[in-house]
Amino acid sequence: MERRQFLRGAALGGAAAATLAAPAVAQARREMIIVSTWPRDFPGVGMSAQRLADRITALSGGAIVTQYFAAGERVGAFDAFDEVASGNAQAYSAAEYYWAGKHPAFSYFSSVPFGMTHPEYSAWLKFRGGQQLWDELSGEFGVKALPAGSTGAQAGGWFNKEIESVDDLRGLKMRIPGLGGTVMSKLGVSVVSLPGGQIYESLVSGAIEATEWVGPYNDYFMKFFDAAKHYYTGGMHEPAGGMALGMNAEWWAGLSDFEKAVINAATEQEFAYSYDESNALNGQYLQRMVEENGVELRNFSEDTWDAFGEAAEEVFEETAAHSDLAERINASFQSNLRELAGYMKGFETSFVNERNRVLGV
Amino acid sequence: MERRQFLRGAALGGAAAATLAAPAVAQARREMIIVSTWPRDFPGVGMSAQRLADRITALSGGAIVTQYFAAGERVGAFDAFDEVASGNAQAYSAAEYYWAGKHPAFSYFSSVPFGMTHPEYSAWLKFRGGQQLWDELSGEFGVKALPAGSTGAQAGGWFNKEIESVDDLRGLKMRIPGLGGTVMSKLGVSVVSLPGGQIYESLVSGAIEATEWVGPYNDYFMKFFDAAKHYYTGGMHEPAGGMALGMNAEWWAGLSDFEKAVINAATEQEFAYSYDESNALNGQYLQRMVEENGVELRNFSEDTWDAFGEAAEEVFEETAAHSDLAERINASFQSNLRELAGYMKGFETSFVNERNRVLGV
Repeated sequence: MERRQFLRGAALGGAAAATLAAPAVAQARREMIIVSTWPRDFPGVGMSAQRLADRITALSGGAIVTQYFAAGERVGAFDAFDEVASGNAQAYSAAEYYWAGKHPAFSYFSSVPFGMTHPEYSAWLKFRGGQQLWDELSGEFGVKALPAGSTGAQAGGWFNKEIESVDDLRGLKMRIPGLGGTVMSKLGVSVVSLPGGQIYESLVSGAIEATEWVGPYNDYFMKFFDAAKHYYTGGMHEPAGGMALGMNAEWWAGLSDFEKAVINAATEQEFAYSYDESNALNGQYLQRMVEENGVELRNFSEDTWDAFGEAAEEVFEETAAHSDLAERINASFQSNLRELAGYMKGFETSFVNERNRVLGV
Repeated sequence: MERRQFLRGAALGGAAAATLAAPAVAQARREMIIVSTWPRDFPGVGMSAQRLADRITALSGGAIVTQYFAAGERVGAFDAFDEVASGNAQAYSAAEYYWAGKHPAFSYFSSVPFGMTHPEYSAWLKFRGGQQLWDELSGEFGVKALPAGSTGAQAGGWFNKEIESVDDLRGLKMRIPGLGGTVMSKLGVSVVSLPGGQIYESLVSGAIEATEWVGPYNDYFMKFFDAAKHYYTGGMHEPAGGMALGMNAEWWAGLSDFEKAVINAATEQEFAYSYDESNALNGQYLQRMVEENGVELRNFSEDTWDAFGEAAEEVFEETAAHSDLAERINASFQSNLRELAGYMKGFETSFVNERNRVLGV
């Protein structure tokens, strides 16, 4: 208990200070325990989750007092879902594909191969029925989840040799989770499952020959370049990298409109902020790795992308076959992806391509 | 006074209802008068500004009570800035390039030709010094502004004939504001300045031959297709379409940390929400206009884009020459644009281009 008391005190420091300045004095304080799948102070995703906890307390004027427990501080990373579903904690911070073992459709609410970018995903959730489908899925487990963070389009990953064609993938030992991993296994990759803390040593020892993680800003701190110099930039597997705040559904239902507005605003704010942070910092860290760490940037060939695409189609067919709900989620995701991407192509994407050409970017 | 009283009551309806449910009882209520540059209930940008006013009241638990006045209800659209700078009102809702007559660098905080997309612009503001430069600029006039809405990449516009090369632009009478208008005038376009309510009749009468407005969702309600069937999609002139909430700087400085957190969260939420709304709805309205209104979609040729690019370069040189501050803002904008775009190109943009190719989007 002493450890928890200590952690509780530490987690509340920033939030308590923010509360003092609030003119709206909370008459009822509500406790919100957040159990996380990320290590404490983990650059990128972990810091984002901690910032969200602070945002909720500050933005509620102290009406909701969050207590943030990093992975292992209260429960193990992958026990976070059950802790919240059972009501032992009020919320978890996670990538939803961690729960694919409970239901494969959870993957659609983090990121899937050939899926939506952050802007497309956000538009689907808010305006095209995505959130309702997510509510239906989470509701089966007594959970209500909201988008709460984003890594942006993730890098294709780190390889200890060049991948010139899909033949080079056969037999390769690679760490890659989610449906992206399933795509890779269809192309002959020997897919390995490893928690973040064990990837580096596995790559250095040769137990694995390739890995993906997030993007330059997050990846820099993992030092994968010590063992794998070939960094593939645009990847097919996680184009949005959405993180979620999952809450106990009964607890959420008991909140006032004000408290719901606070949690909606804080999560949407962090959803946008973390995406901006990745976009703003990734370029600097990419440049640093190229200049100081001998990293060589690579792109997958068109043939390799085509092979990824065929494999992904099979993966989606298999995923949709799981259940009626999985089929409806896949159908909504795929049709909205094509509509949104088609529109974006004519406007923002065509602008970007022409601008970059003209400016020589 | 009676009219104002009536409007005040109407504007408070939604906000007052939201306040009732808040457990955090406000002990001091603060009035926040928002004067807008948009007509009441104007689809897209106008509705976004009204939603923001409601968000602030609800999210503050009633501590900040907003009163929203549409264009002309309290002051005329283009008097909004002075009304706030003088302290007669607390805030305005506007596109910052409306104030280019006061200082040309305001244009960088709405959108400029060959400029940043929404994600790039947001990353610049939050993580690359953009907000600090904006604060310096607005501070010269006693204003503090925040990003509060976004149209996404705007359409190239409506033309009553095809634009096959830059020669077709010479002598063309077109309504296009901001630095995009200056670019067009360098290519021989006769640039006309018209408020939104007069564009349709000018286009139908032939007083103008072309106009830009926003994008499919906003443009649909303007019915420009009655007189100009050629709709150019990707445009060079407003790739982000940022809207701002400008506040009296002294009033802002007097807010508590809680109140500032509320306004920061509400504006960031609406900034993302309105961008998502455009992306989600534009595709449907574009399809409707093509199928029901005989609209023909066009793209500017590469040569035309090149000519736009050369003219834009001249425009930026002239804008930067205005003052030390304009030079610093232009330098920060241009260098960050190239860095951010360069990074995005290798990741999100390359993913999107490959995905669209593979999926046949």
